[in-house]
Amino acid sequence: MKKIINEPGMIVDEMLQGLVKSYPESIHQVADSRVVAKNETKKQVGLVSGGGSGHEPAHAGFVGEGMLSAAVLGDVFTSPTPDQIEIAINEVDYGAGVLLIVKNYTGDILNFEMAKDLAALNEIPVEMVVVDDDVAVENSTYTAGKRGVAGTILVHKILGDAARSGLSLSELKTLGEKVVAEIKTIGVALAAATVPEVGKPGFTLAEDEIEFGVGIHGEPGYRREKMQTSKEMAQELVSKILSQYEQKPVEVGVLVNGMGATPLMEQFVFMNDVLNELSSQGIAVTFHKVGNYMTSIDMEGLSLTLINLSEKTWLSALNSQVDTISW
Amino acid sequence: MKKIINEPGMIVDEMLQGLVKSYPESIHQVADSRVVAKNETKKQVGLVSGGGSGHEPAHAGFVGEGMLSAAVLGDVFTSPTPDQIEIAINEVDYGAGVLLIVKNYTGDILNFEMAKDLAALNEIPVEMVVVDDDVAVENSTYTAGKRGVAGTILVHKILGDAARSGLSLSELKTLGEKVVAEIKTIGVALAAATVPEVGKPGFTLAEDEIEFGVGIHGEPGYRREKMQTSKEMAQELVSKILSQYEQKPVEVGVLVNGMGATPLMEQFVFMNDVLNELSSQGIAVTFHKVGNYMTSIDMEGLSLTLINLSEKTWLSALNSQVDTISW
Repeated sequence: MKKIINEPGMIVDEMLQGLVKSYPESIHQVADSRVVAKNETKKQVGLVSGGGSGHEPAHAGFVGEGMLSAAVLGDVFTSPTPDQIEIAINEVDYGAGVLLIVKNYTGDILNFEMAKDLAALNEIPVEMVVVDDDVAVENSTYTAGKRGVAGTILVHKILGDAARSGLSLSELKTLGEKVVAEIKTIGVALAAATVPEVGKPGFTLAEDEIEFGVGIHGEPGYRREKMQTSKEMAQELVSKILSQYEQKPVEVGVLVNGMGATPLMEQFVFMNDVLNELSSQGIAVTFHKVGNYMTSIDMEGLSLTLINLSEKTWLSALNSQVDTISW
Repeated sequence: MKKIINEPGMIVDEMLQGLVKSYPESIHQVADSRVVAKNETKKQVGLVSGGGSGHEPAHAGFVGEGMLSAAVLGDVFTSPTPDQIEIAINEVDYGAGVLLIVKNYTGDILNFEMAKDLAALNEIPVEMVVVDDDVAVENSTYTAGKRGVAGTILVHKILGDAARSGLSLSELKTLGEKVVAEIKTIGVALAAATVPEVGKPGFTLAEDEIEFGVGIHGEPGYRREKMQTSKEMAQELVSKILSQYEQKPVEVGVLVNGMGATPLMEQFVFMNDVLNELSSQGIAVTFHKVGNYMTSIDMEGLSLTLINLSEKTWLSALNSQVDTISW
């Protein structure tokens, strides 16, 4: 394993230092914590997300005016603890309550629920939206139900815009659940990630193999296959995702998300094939995003996310200006 | 070789398609060309950059209001041809002349010079700024003199802001040369890139080896070394770069640039070490940037760029708003 690090056990704290030192005008680290919060503190519902590290820029890269209020960083691929989540809640309780946006993994749900209970003792109103956009498999290694993956950043963006515009905590929870239901993602891997403290790849694919439907922690997918062209992969993922909507969408947003070690060149080639496929099916694409947003350390591969944009206000929420590091 | 592509020979054209289809509101492809130009056409000096593909998001990701007017894409690691560069010049001649920003490689210099001569026949005033920020080695595989690498995007940014504010062609050339002289970069590689049409990595490093000073096309560096910690690498690169300034800078901007397959996590750990090192040397850092900006396909590694910010106006130019895909 070659990585540009010091002690594997110090990666998260050192990364966090590098991050907050680089953007002091927009974000700060809450003292003695692994919480990154935005500097702006105007009254609105606070939005908190987080999870295990290794998915950078998620979630700290999405903290800032118009998006998340705070992100909580766990160890690599490990949920943050309830006390850390509670620190984030306290930090961004601007007087209108706090909404937690949580990817659907058993550990995360448990710890964010506990933090919610702790906050209740301090009489801070807290609600939770669970993101389970990965339609590749029904249950998986670390979760009951579908996994939460790259589509989470679209939830951050739409809810961030809505919170800024003054929606109440309960309105945001309702909106969040509506948005989550319209977002669907599937990933494909060419090679596994190496967790620094483990030191070797989490799984092995042969030199000519890919795996459809893998998760962002190396969880198994739904089919291992000989290497295909970008066009074939795009057709497979588009058709699999579309089959999960009860009614075929008329207008969608597309997110092509690199997993960490996938060149942007390949991501744009794949995007081209996805857009051709959607066009051939008569589906309009009015929002596009390509890049590394929800990574799996150094995994080779990418994910495709579609969001049904039949609700017109979501498109302007996706396009609104934000002040974050990575959106 | 596993890559998410179709025909290796079609990568550049398909990538270009994916790019322009994703951002139709800001950029377009000039018909029958490999030129990406911004949609905005207000009168100012046009700024054109470009070079071989494989360095995404450079340069097309920096086309937009306040930065480049157009980018010309060559084949992977191959200079664009003069006729393509001439198309770009014609496209962005808004009536105030065109400045070419060229990385210092023999093929690029030759082709951009030829395009400049072709433009002269059409009476379009054209000037050229050559970027040679890589202070690792004096001459290299594809060039006489120092190579042009990641610091080029800082030149794009500062000149982009200046062009927008109305500087003349000759003023921009003078400013560009002044800026280039204050930007210095060195890269480090953990593993080589694989050019799709070649199908295997460009060089080999042992499982415990790194190479200091490599270029963005796999050109040799100045020393091969056993794996080091991020802190040791940061100290080496900082001290090597600082030694190239005649006078030690008081205030700098820092760009940590991922080479394509390097997780953001490692880039931020490294940034933390760089900032600690600069702080211990009493150098103020007032501009920070971390991410994949000038990549080498899927090379593992990163580069460090410092820019001397003793000229105060450059900082505001670096911080000004732009409408590009990747800045």
